[in-house]
Amino acid sequence: MSNQPKAVVLISGGLDSATIMAIARSQGFQLHGLSFDYGQRHRFELQSAARVCQANEAASHVVFPVATDIFRGSALTNDIAVPHDRSEDEMGDGIPVTYVPARNTIFLSVGLGLAESIGASDIFIGVNAVDYSGYPDCRPEYIEAFERMANLGTKAGVEGRKITVHMPLVSLTKADIIRQGLSLGVDYGLTHSCYDPSPEGVSCGKCDSCQLRRKGFAEAGATDPIAYQ
Amino acid sequence: MSNQPKAVVLISGGLDSATIMAIARSQGFQLHGLSFDYGQRHRFELQSAARVCQANEAASHVVFPVATDIFRGSALTNDIAVPHDRSEDEMGDGIPVTYVPARNTIFLSVGLGLAESIGASDIFIGVNAVDYSGYPDCRPEYIEAFERMANLGTKAGVEGRKITVHMPLVSLTKADIIRQGLSLGVDYGLTHSCYDPSPEGVSCGKCDSCQLRRKGFAEAGATDPIAYQ
Repeated sequence: MSNQPKAVVLISGGLDSATIMAIARSQGFQLHGLSFDYGQRHRFELQSAARVCQANEAASHVVFPVATDIFRGSALTNDIAVPHDRSEDEMGDGIPVTYVPARNTIFLSVGLGLAESIGASDIFIGVNAVDYSGYPDCRPEYIEAFERMANLGTKAGVEGRKITVHMPLVSLTKADIIRQGLSLGVDYGLTHSCYDPSPEGVSCGKCDSCQLRRKGFAEAGATDPIAYQ
Repeated sequence: MSNQPKAVVLISGGLDSATIMAIARSQGFQLHGLSFDYGQRHRFELQSAARVCQANEAASHVVFPVATDIFRGSALTNDIAVPHDRSEDEMGDGIPVTYVPARNTIFLSVGLGLAESIGASDIFIGVNAVDYSGYPDCRPEYIEAFERMANLGTKAGVEGRKITVHMPLVSLTKADIIRQGLSLGVDYGLTHSCYDPSPEGVSCGKCDSCQLRRKGFAEAGATDPIAYQ
C-alpha cells in the first residue's frame, strides 16, 4: 500500500499534457491518467497519451468514451476545414472554430468523478491562457469557478477533503512550458500536437497547434524531436 | 422553422424529471430530452424517459452513454445493497450510499455541451433539496455555482447568451411536485422511481425512492398509478 496522494491528470497526448504529468509526478503524486475518445480526427493523440502515461509510470490510464454527436459544430470533430497558416493575430481573434462545446467542463467533470471514485483530491489540467486565449474554458477564472462548484457538489468537498484543480501552465508561454518540461526530462518525441495529421500520423506543421508548437521550440532554443510533413 | 426557444431537459424517467419536462413545456420551450445510460441497475427508467419525452412531444431525446467504471463505489451501480424500509431520519442522515460521484456535474456538463450544440440557453434539472438533502449536488448553491462556471466556460456565456440552469423543484416537497405535475397533466403512470425493481420492472415499494414517492402521493391526496410488488 502506498501513502502517496493520488492525482487525476487529464492527458491528451499533446505537449502541454505531457508537461503537466511530469509536473504532477515531480510533486510526488501517484498518477492516474484520464483521456477522452470523443471521435477527434487526431486520434493519434490517444496513442501518445498512452505512451506518456507509460513513460511516467502512471498507476492507471482510463480512456473515457464521449458520444460524439453531442459535439457537433466543431472543426475538431466535423467536416469544417482546420485553418492552416494563420497569423498569430488571426489565431487570437475571437473563439476558434476548433472550440468544442463545453469540452473542458465535460472533461473536468469526468475527472472529478474519477477523482472521487479513487479517493484523489487533486486534478491536473493543461489549460493555457497565453497561446489559446480564444477558448473561454482555458481561462483561470473559469477553472476557479469549476473548482468552487466541485467543492459544493461532491462528497469529498462537503466532507472537507478539498478538491484542487491544478493548472500549472495557465500563464506560461509555449517556450516556458517546453523549458520546464525539458528540465523535468519530458520526452516530447512521445507527444502529438497536430490537428490535421497525415493518415500515418505525421504532423502537418501548418495548423494552429503545429505552428504554436514549432514557435515554442524555436523560442526555447530547443529541437522539436517529432517529424513534420 | 420554429422561433421557439430550446431547452435541454435532463430526464431520468422518474417522477421529478417528468414534472420538470411538463414545466418546461408550459413555459413555451421546444424540448430536447437528455438521459444517461450509466449502467444503472434500474434501467427501466430509460424506457420511462423515452415515454415521457414522447408524451411531451419533445423535439429530440438523446441517451448519452457514460462509461460505468468511473462510477464505482455507489450502490446504484455496484453490489452494495440498496437500503430498504429506512425511516426518514435514517434517509436524512449524511450522504446516502446511493450517491454517485460527481453525477449531476457530469450530467449537467453534457447537458451544457448539448445546449451549446443546438443553440439552447436553458437547461432544466429536477434536483430537489427537500427530500434528498443528503446529496451535495442537489443543493441550490451547487447549481448556482455550476451556472456561474458554465457562463465563464462557454462561447454562449462569453458572447452574452446567458446559460440558465432551471431547478423548478428545488424547494418543493414531493407532494407539491406531484400536485404541480397533475395540474399540468403529467401522466405519472409513465414514470419509474424504484432503485430496486423486479426483473419485470415492477417497483419494490420499499427503497428510499419508492417510499418517498408513495408518501408524496398520499400527502397530495392523489393515487399513484403505478403498481408495486
